[in-house]
Amino acid sequence: MSTANPPLRAADGGSLVQAAIQAVTNYIRDERLRVGDTLPGEAHFAELLGVSRAVMREAFGAMAALRLIDVGNGRKPRVGKLDGAVIATSLNHAVSTAQITVAEIWDVRRTIEVRTAALAATCRTDEEAARIMELAQAMAEDRDDDARRTRHDIAFHNAIAHASHNVLFIQIVASFAPLMDVAVPAAWRTRKAKKQQQLMIDRHLAVARAIVARDAAAAAAAMSVHFDDAIGDLLKAETLANGAT
Amino acid sequence: MSTANPPLRAADGGSLVQAAIQAVTNYIRDERLRVGDTLPGEAHFAELLGVSRAVMREAFGAMAALRLIDVGNGRKPRVGKLDGAVIATSLNHAVSTAQITVAEIWDVRRTIEVRTAALAATCRTDEEAARIMELAQAMAEDRDDDARRTRHDIAFHNAIAHASHNVLFIQIVASFAPLMDVAVPAAWRTRKAKKQQQLMIDRHLAVARAIVARDAAAAAAAMSVHFDDAIGDLLKAETLANGAT
Repeated sequence: MSTANPPLRAADGGSLVQAAIQAVTNYIRDERLRVGDTLPGEAHFAELLGVSRAVMREAFGAMAALRLIDVGNGRKPRVGKLDGAVIATSLNHAVSTAQITVAEIWDVRRTIEVRTAALAATCRTDEEAARIMELAQAMAEDRDDDARRTRHDIAFHNAIAHASHNVLFIQIVASFAPLMDVAVPAAWRTRKAKKQQQLMIDRHLAVARAIVARDAAAAAAAMSVHFDDAIGDLLKAETLANGAT
Repeated sequence: MSTANPPLRAADGGSLVQAAIQAVTNYIRDERLRVGDTLPGEAHFAELLGVSRAVMREAFGAMAALRLIDVGNGRKPRVGKLDGAVIATSLNHAVSTAQITVAEIWDVRRTIEVRTAALAATCRTDEEAARIMELAQAMAEDRDDDARRTRHDIAFHNAIAHASHNVLFIQIVASFAPLMDVAVPAAWRTRKAKKQQQLMIDRHLAVARAIVARDAAAAAAAMSVHFDDAIGDLLKAETLANGAT
């Protein structure tokens, strides 16, 4: 590319800012840049593309919001790392504006996590297996402490995703964490009897044991059973929250 | 909220813009706004939160990039609709910067779409079933036209997701479309023999027939077999692209 390029034009139906975002995206791809590599700044791209600094500032701002680039104070922009926070933001927005239900998200979680459990059983390192078991045991120990138990629970699901060694699964599961922060304690509150609470602890231990044993089918089955129970409790929690009997 | 609120302060480790985004997000949630509802403009929030117009402009720009709000020329911002394009942008960036491999995405797709096929068999309307079958047949008719066949293929997978009637599955599957635009023709080019091409057409027809028959187990099994073949062809395409033998 050279500064002799014709000025950038907006594509049909798109804005000049969107065209600028596409141009920077193409630059990252064509130059084969990797996470952390620096990019030229706004001024460079403004001149290169024949657009105003204001357009480039907006384009960089949008790319930063989508975590495609990292921009710091006065520092050169860098290629951004895939971040489940972008998906999490979408999900939270969709839930709080009633575009999707908690039950719909739980079906997606179940589908994904039955697979990460199976992959974890096959791909986990010994350290990862130990960590997963440790977190299931920590849940049992902290069963009466809502905040700590929920933290272990979320970490447990993330640890399994990590042990799948598939970066996309890791990010998708991470994106569920903010929703679990709310949904997990709500579901737990419906488990008044100690027996019900023990069952939920046992479900997590069963998943952990199958992953330790490298038994993919058992890990998937145990995760599936865990979600069967959890979804039931969650829907009960939603019904209670809505004031139904 | 009133203009007598204390000025907004950045949370630990966050920027003032992030705090402003959080404040607008909370406003949407607390006012129980829905898709298409209007929000007060930048000036209103700037005064309310005690921040500069520049900060609010940046916050609104980031929220628009994440499709949390829609902003038009001079119009009031509106609550945005959940849009797979945000996830698609993340995925494309991660692939083009080598953060995730095509094989990793294919495993996620397979996991999701085995489930959408099963849900579609259970939940589809008659119109949806007819549309899915129509698209599988269109693939067969246009087998020698790369662009048209790929378009039918992508529409086929989206139609199945729609028939699952789970909005989150619909958006996730939609987010795969830009990647399929590249990957599907690449995989197809490895299927030189007519017999291999016919097999791929048959796989799609088998999924469609199971959905028409309301047979969830058969639909999931057929989709799984389809992905087994497709992943094999895709990895072959990648190997060829990398110049290996």
